[in-house]
Amino acid sequence: MSITKIVILDGPNLNKIGTREPDIYGDISIKDYLLELQKSYSDLCLEHYQSNYEGQLIDWLQQFATEPSVLGFVLNAGAYTHSSIAIADAIRSIDKPVIEVHISNIYARETFRQQSFISPVATGSISGLGLLSYHLAIEALKRKKSDCLV
Amino acid sequence: MSITKIVILDGPNLNKIGTREPDIYGDISIKDYLLELQKSYSDLCLEHYQSNYEGQLIDWLQQFATEPSVLGFVLNAGAYTHSSIAIADAIRSIDKPVIEVHISNIYARETFRQQSFISPVATGSISGLGLLSYHLAIEALKRKKSDCLV
Amino acid sequence: MSITKIVILDGPNLNKIGTREPDIYGDISIKDYLLELQKSYSDLCLEHYQSNYEGQLIDWLQQFATEPSVLGFVLNAGAYTHSSIAIADAIRSIDKPVIEVHISNIYARETFRQQSFISPVATGSISGLGLLSYHLAIEALKRKKSDCLV
Amino acid sequence: MSITKIVILDGPNLNKIGTREPDIYGDISIKDYLLELQKSYSDLCLEHYQSNYEGQLIDWLQQFATEPSVLGFVLNAGAYTHSSIAIADAIRSIDKPVIEVHISNIYARETFRQQSFISPVATGSISGLGLLSYHLAIEALKRKKSDCLV
Amino acid sequence: MSITKIVILDGPNLNKIGTREPDIYGDISIKDYLLELQKSYSDLCLEHYQSNYEGQLIDWLQQFATEPSVLGFVLNAGAYTHSSIAIADAIRSIDKPVIEVHISNIYARETFRQQSFISPVATGSISGLGLLSYHLAIEALKRKKSDCLV
Amino acid sequence: MSITKIVILDGPNLNKIGTREPDIYGDISIKDYLLELQKSYSDLCLEHYQSNYEGQLIDWLQQFATEPSVLGFVLNAGAYTHSSIAIADAIRSIDKPVIEVHISNIYARETFRQQSFISPVATGSISGLGLLSYHLAIEALKRKKSDCLV
Amino acid sequence: MSITKIVILDGPNLNKIGTREPDIYGDISIKDYLLELQKSYSDLCLEHYQSNYEGQLIDWLQQFATEPSVLGFVLNAGAYTHSSIAIADAIRSIDKPVIEVHISNIYARETFRQQSFISPVATGSISGLGLLSYHLAIEALKRKKSDCLV
Amino acid sequence: MSITKIVILDGPNLNKIGTREPDIYGDISIKDYLLELQKSYSDLCLEHYQSNYEGQLIDWLQQFATEPSVLGFVLNAGAYTHSSIAIADAIRSIDKPVIEVHISNIYARETFRQQSFISPVATGSISGLGLLSYHLAIEALKRKKSDCLV
Amino acid sequence: MSITKIVILDGPNLNKIGTREPDIYGDISIKDYLLELQKSYSDLCLEHYQSNYEGQLIDWLQQFATEPSVLGFVLNAGAYTHSSIAIADAIRSIDKPVIEVHISNIYARETFRQQSFISPVATGSISGLGLLSYHLAIEALKRKKSDCLV
Amino acid sequence: MSITKIVILDGPNLNKIGTREPDIYGDISIKDYLLELQKSYSDLCLEHYQSNYEGQLIDWLQQFATEPSVLGFVLNAGAYTHSSIAIADAIRSIDKPVIEVHISNIYARETFRQQSFISPVATGSISGLGLLSYHLAIEALKRKKSDCLV
Amino acid sequence: MSITKIVILDGPNLNKIGTREPDIYGDISIKDYLLELQKSYSDLCLEHYQSNYEGQLIDWLQQFATEPSVLGFVLNAGAYTHSSIAIADAIRSIDKPVIEVHISNIYARETFRQQSFISPVATGSISGLGLLSYHLAIEALKRKKSDCLV
Amino acid sequence: MSITKIVILDGPNLNKIGTREPDIYGDISIKDYLLELQKSYSDLCLEHYQSNYEGQLIDWLQQFATEPSVLGFVLNAGAYTHSSIAIADAIRSIDKPVIEVHISNIYARETFRQQSFISPVATGSISGLGLLSYHLAIEALKRKKSDCLV
Repeated sequence: MSITKIVILDGPNLNKIGTREPDIYGDISIKDYLLELQKSYSDLCLEHYQSNYEGQLIDWLQQFATEPSVLGFVLNAGAYTHSSIAIADAIRSIDKPVIEVHISNIYARETFRQQSFISPVATGSISGLGLLSYHLAIEALKRKKSDCLV
Repeated sequence: MSITKIVILDGPNLNKIGTREPDIYGDISIKDYLLELQKSYSDLCLEHYQSNYEGQLIDWLQQFATEPSVLGFVLNAGAYTHSSIAIADAIRSIDKPVIEVHISNIYARETFRQQSFISPVATGSISGLGLLSYHLAIEALKRKKSDCLV
Repeated sequence: MSITKIVILDGPNLNKIGTREPDIYGDISIKDYLLELQKSYSDLCLEHYQSNYEGQLIDWLQQFATEPSVLGFVLNAGAYTHSSIAIADAIRSIDKPVIEVHISNIYARETFRQQSFISPVATGSISGLGLLSYHLAIEALKRKKSDCLV
Repeated sequence: MSITKIVILDGPNLNKIGTREPDIYGDISIKDYLLELQKSYSDLCLEHYQSNYEGQLIDWLQQFATEPSVLGFVLNAGAYTHSSIAIADAIRSIDKPVIEVHISNIYARETFRQQSFISPVATGSISGLGLLSYHLAIEALKRKKSDCLV
Repeated sequence: MSITKIVILDGPNLNKIGTREPDIYGDISIKDYLLELQKSYSDLCLEHYQSNYEGQLIDWLQQFATEPSVLGFVLNAGAYTHSSIAIADAIRSIDKPVIEVHISNIYARETFRQQSFISPVATGSISGLGLLSYHLAIEALKRKKSDCLV
Repeated sequence: MSITKIVILDGPNLNKIGTREPDIYGDISIKDYLLELQKSYSDLCLEHYQSNYEGQLIDWLQQFATEPSVLGFVLNAGAYTHSSIAIADAIRSIDKPVIEVHISNIYARETFRQQSFISPVATGSISGLGLLSYHLAIEALKRKKSDCLV
Repeated sequence: MSITKIVILDGPNLNKIGTREPDIYGDISIKDYLLELQKSYSDLCLEHYQSNYEGQLIDWLQQFATEPSVLGFVLNAGAYTHSSIAIADAIRSIDKPVIEVHISNIYARETFRQQSFISPVATGSISGLGLLSYHLAIEALKRKKSDCLV
Repeated sequence: MSITKIVILDGPNLNKIGTREPDIYGDISIKDYLLELQKSYSDLCLEHYQSNYEGQLIDWLQQFATEPSVLGFVLNAGAYTHSSIAIADAIRSIDKPVIEVHISNIYARETFRQQSFISPVATGSISGLGLLSYHLAIEALKRKKSDCLV
Repeated sequence: MSITKIVILDGPNLNKIGTREPDIYGDISIKDYLLELQKSYSDLCLEHYQSNYEGQLIDWLQQFATEPSVLGFVLNAGAYTHSSIAIADAIRSIDKPVIEVHISNIYARETFRQQSFISPVATGSISGLGLLSYHLAIEALKRKKSDCLV
Repeated sequence: MSITKIVILDGPNLNKIGTREPDIYGDISIKDYLLELQKSYSDLCLEHYQSNYEGQLIDWLQQFATEPSVLGFVLNAGAYTHSSIAIADAIRSIDKPVIEVHISNIYARETFRQQSFISPVATGSISGLGLLSYHLAIEALKRKKSDCLV
Repeated sequence: MSITKIVILDGPNLNKIGTREPDIYGDISIKDYLLELQKSYSDLCLEHYQSNYEGQLIDWLQQFATEPSVLGFVLNAGAYTHSSIAIADAIRSIDKPVIEVHISNIYARETFRQQSFISPVATGSISGLGLLSYHLAIEALKRKKSDCLV
Repeated sequence: MSITKIVILDGPNLNKIGTREPDIYGDISIKDYLLELQKSYSDLCLEHYQSNYEGQLIDWLQQFATEPSVLGFVLNAGAYTHSSIAIADAIRSIDKPVIEVHISNIYARETFRQQSFISPVATGSISGLGLLSYHLAIEALKRKKSDCLV
């Protein structure tokens, strides 16, 4: 029996979290955070990918969306959040839920970061809560599936 | 010893959730949902208030922010999200964390709902996940306090 | 048997009509006008409320919308017409018809008065006809109910 | 003694009301509606014209404005509402009152329909009330003339 | 048995194609081009009309839309493309397909020519291909009717 | 030998100059002014036309542009100045000079009157000088032809 | 004989001045500052009110405007400065002078704080001078009344 | 002797046409449609490529533009249509004609889809005609080459 | 008896007309043109000044406006036309007529040249007619004074 | 011992205050007003300069900022308020306080007067209070220096 | 001892410089130019890379930024200059200086090319000087390091 | 034999570089920097001028452009960069190359500093490199003249 999978996709420059500006972002990378998180989820497989290519993120969304064992996506599209209509189209074209996450509060930054092409097509959005945003997004996907009220 | 409190504030028209359009929003009110949720938190007191008055929401933010037992706020400012600089100023002037929540995906709606005065000053934002948004916001406040990694 | 009621709601500063600038607005207040109008409607009860509080207007819309005897609303939201998404949401959430009225022609005034958040959600709009706007709105509600063609 | 006349002018495509989308607009044309309405006004002559030409509407406004028996105009400029400065200029240049009407709620439609060149120069505006909008406009013209309060 | 007809409507100034700037547009008028094209369509009657009047174009759309033998329209609204909400409304109100054509690439010209009120309501749009645009539009109407795949 | 002709074209509502608001515009119509002006030009024929139809103005521009005796046009497009791309296109497509005139200072009026589609394609523009604007435009056409310096 | 009164109205969050960010705003509240200031004005009564409710501010403006002893208003509308057309309307509808004040320089802050609905309808505006802004506004009201040149 | 080739390039998510929402788009993929179409063109080789990478589309445009046997391109850039200046630059830098196609009517969709960076630099554009858009584009390229009138 | 004077003011870079791009502007400077023009006006003194300084132009407007013999101004503010509110204020503050002139058609150039701060406050505007614009402006000032009809 | 000096700088057209429109601005010039005001300040030297040149105002700001006896500036930049980034830069580069003043309420005038480049960099702003604005600004500079609370 | 390296990165379509439009850009490619330039720098290694992929440019910036021998970057992001927030983020996240270069003057071209996401985060920008822009950028990096004044 | 000259023009407030904020800009003035730089150019005469007057900068551009020995200009127009169409016109009207320089990165500052009227008409632009920007601009002028490749 195949285990349920949640696919976590990170966009451009997010591979640098953990090494860059540790006083702000802490000294743990997203990958390490997710490895730690995996330990508390025996019934879920967390798969993590990162790319600086817009096209690669679309390929992954298309590919994993057809895998029956995938429960849904956690997507931090990084800077592509604000410019990629193509990723938004990919989300719209798949049947699996996608939760948009951001580590920092994108609305407290430059004006051009306050438009998100992802938000209108995502199932939900979580931002500003640091790496905890990923954890809550995984919880959201899990609970949405089990359909219990709280 | 006083128990830790989380204050949940709802803005205009949110008292109607549960009775209006039950096929979309379900037939449970926010108050009932939080009562149910309270049961699973023995160490937390969830206090819930709703008002259609912008001024009342500011009064509550100012008043509860000075109560030592309050851990933080979960705020669904409803339509005031998009017009109230005054609520945003109130959030900026207090020291407790405020998590912004929305039941629906505000970015998939009218243009004027895509601007939030609350987002830039909130600690974080969670939207589009139905009543689960409230649950995750409470989790976020609780975890942020305990400071454990995951 | 309870009589059919039409609720007339006035927003900020409309309590001053009749005393302020009588050469423009005449020297009759909205309340006096409606009292006079009541005399010609034996089958209708005209109830009139005014408030300078956005929240109070929402409270009234929510409250009267659940009274079975209320046929509908005549709403002059005054300056809130141009800024209140919350009142618009309240209108959208109730099942009774709401006719928007304005005494003066708001489109012949400042630019910021040419946007109305109420118009898109109201059943209809009547403006620029002085206090007669209220009269026509009451007629509209009455005729819409009786469903006769003219 | 010449009878008092009210001139009702309809702009482009309004000749199709009644045959197009009867489930929305009903199966009665504006002409038939006005014929029926005429029966209840023994003291008024309702004259109705329709044209798809912007210039024709201006010609009519100029021409009927000089007829002493004309009390005023009811004008549904259709799509020209949103683009015709020339019709607005014609209204401004005549001494007779012009009531703007719209069958549907133009503010609940596309953005470019939310600007009206007619509204700022019309005596008043009535919209969103179906064919009843015409009836109320005729009432408004009639009452304005008799100058009685209600 | 009545023959199938395609109505080609040209807007303002298009009667000058062929005589004006022959080095750019060639020395053949649209009318001559269509006469030539007619020869290769034994099963289709191409009817061609041109007017500088916005209202005339609407009249034609309304009139031919009710003729059963008309398969659809090819419409080059010329400059009205960028300003006429009324023509767009006429297209929306008829049941026959309308293919929008332009001889030149309107997107490579002034900013105000890059907005088309026709495009959102047309069945399809073909531009920038010279008089060939008309030919392809006729092909499109013909093939759409026969429903064969290629 | 045919006499040299200057064609003066007036757009919508300009037939009302002279009778409307005589305290502002004086009590002389454009037609009478031009008749008076004709007396001082023995070598020029001033032909004057007015229409409320956009399409008619285009027809006249196209038609007179092919008459060899026409020296050029004086065009007061009235309100179409601010909305008609089609008239602008007609001007661009003809070889005769067109001088744009306005009686009042259009730049001291509403914002939407400050955009002119005619100005960029006209030979020159004269505005704000009352009926004298027409006189100067005629002088300009005459002098441009004779090519003497002053 | 009733003493002359100046009414000082503070909007949302201004009750927090003095306790919040004392390094920036000092550790004196507006109320204490005005109490101190009162001592040097034996001929004036300074009345001070604060509210987080937009409607309350309008109520006060309407109510005190009818008191003969009131010389005028000093108004710091806080965040409502940038969003409240209703307060601006209230100011426009009263006959007493209203001086707008701001403690900080609102023009050196976020873009949305650079629009003031109050400024165009206020008698004058004073900003950026800390609590001294209140003092100068009181001086301005006093001097304006005595009408001496300097 | 090398055969004449037409290169058809598809952008992001277009590989999903045919499997996604078959009730709207039909159940045939673009690849299958082109295979079918190939059969009726014995003198033309249709080459089809799809990529989710903006850079890949540019690479292909650059590479095939230097092949002498390539007659031209049919390009459906998908979502990159609205954001990619780089693809537009690539088109501008090559000597072969590029026909832009879209399956759906992009002008009837979200505002951000109404700007096309491709349109101003393409030879021509065809949209809204389903897969037939591809067919007509191929016809256009073929006819443009043979230079016969119709 | 002092002779009537017309003051012609030229703004930045206009001293270069005549030497720069003679194929476009001819090889005569504005100064030489006016010297020639002076010969045909025995009853008028044409005074001509040019400066690249915004402040100098304001000084001249203020200074000559107080000279009784000055009939009015002809002003070509050059590039300051599009940026100088200060020159516009100076024009508004003087009692003499000011005719705005431009040699070229400013509306056929860059977007930022299509806004004129001078036009709304000038008596009239003449543009696009080469140096003849100056001649016509002088005529306009002269005729306006003599008040004869044509 | 050198006396403390306050430098008052006036921008373009302000030399005309007192002679122009005396019914609005009174018949006293700014210079006379300041001379009168000087009498009540034995401990302060008021120096007043006016120029129509943007560059001159910058020169003065730079020059007086280095004089130790200068306490600060009162600056009414007139129309340059709305266009001069250079004056704003000069203010930013000096260490002395600059109080911006305006005689009239600039926010009740044209749109382009509602942007001030001076406000964000000035110490404070006072507007709409007539010549009293200058008096209050001088008071503000004096009090700021003495640092007493009220 | 490792030699100091400067990495030159070129974005989309820049591989075509030298072969495309040689009359404008000359007939030398960027690669050849840099090879020639290398000869005069014995103490510097110039490394040159080009890609049409946004993701590839980010990869290179991340990778070379960690090489100790790299002195800095010269980046011509081509069309991505105007659309890529992701490249801008990559620049912001690295510690090496990045000089932005452009061969042509991007400010003399289309409006959408006048916004650069790179400029605000680059150390400096050089544009419009042809291939010399690269040379000057290399000089700038070298001099910045040696810290000598000129 | 006259020596080749390069004219360096500085706009408003740039005379303060070196004394103001030395920790940011260093303690060397532009004049001193250029004096130092002169030593390494035996074949070039560097002439340096600064003015706070827009008109003075235009005068200098016009005057030096006619001197045969002037090779070109280095222009730092300071704040006038963002507002002066007149300086831009002066640059356009002269035949000598003009290199625009800025000490700081103007694109990393306020929005209104991101528009440059100078950039589109300058030969090239160099910004953000401190005083080195001047040095590189002089190099660029020198190399452009000698026409050697690197």
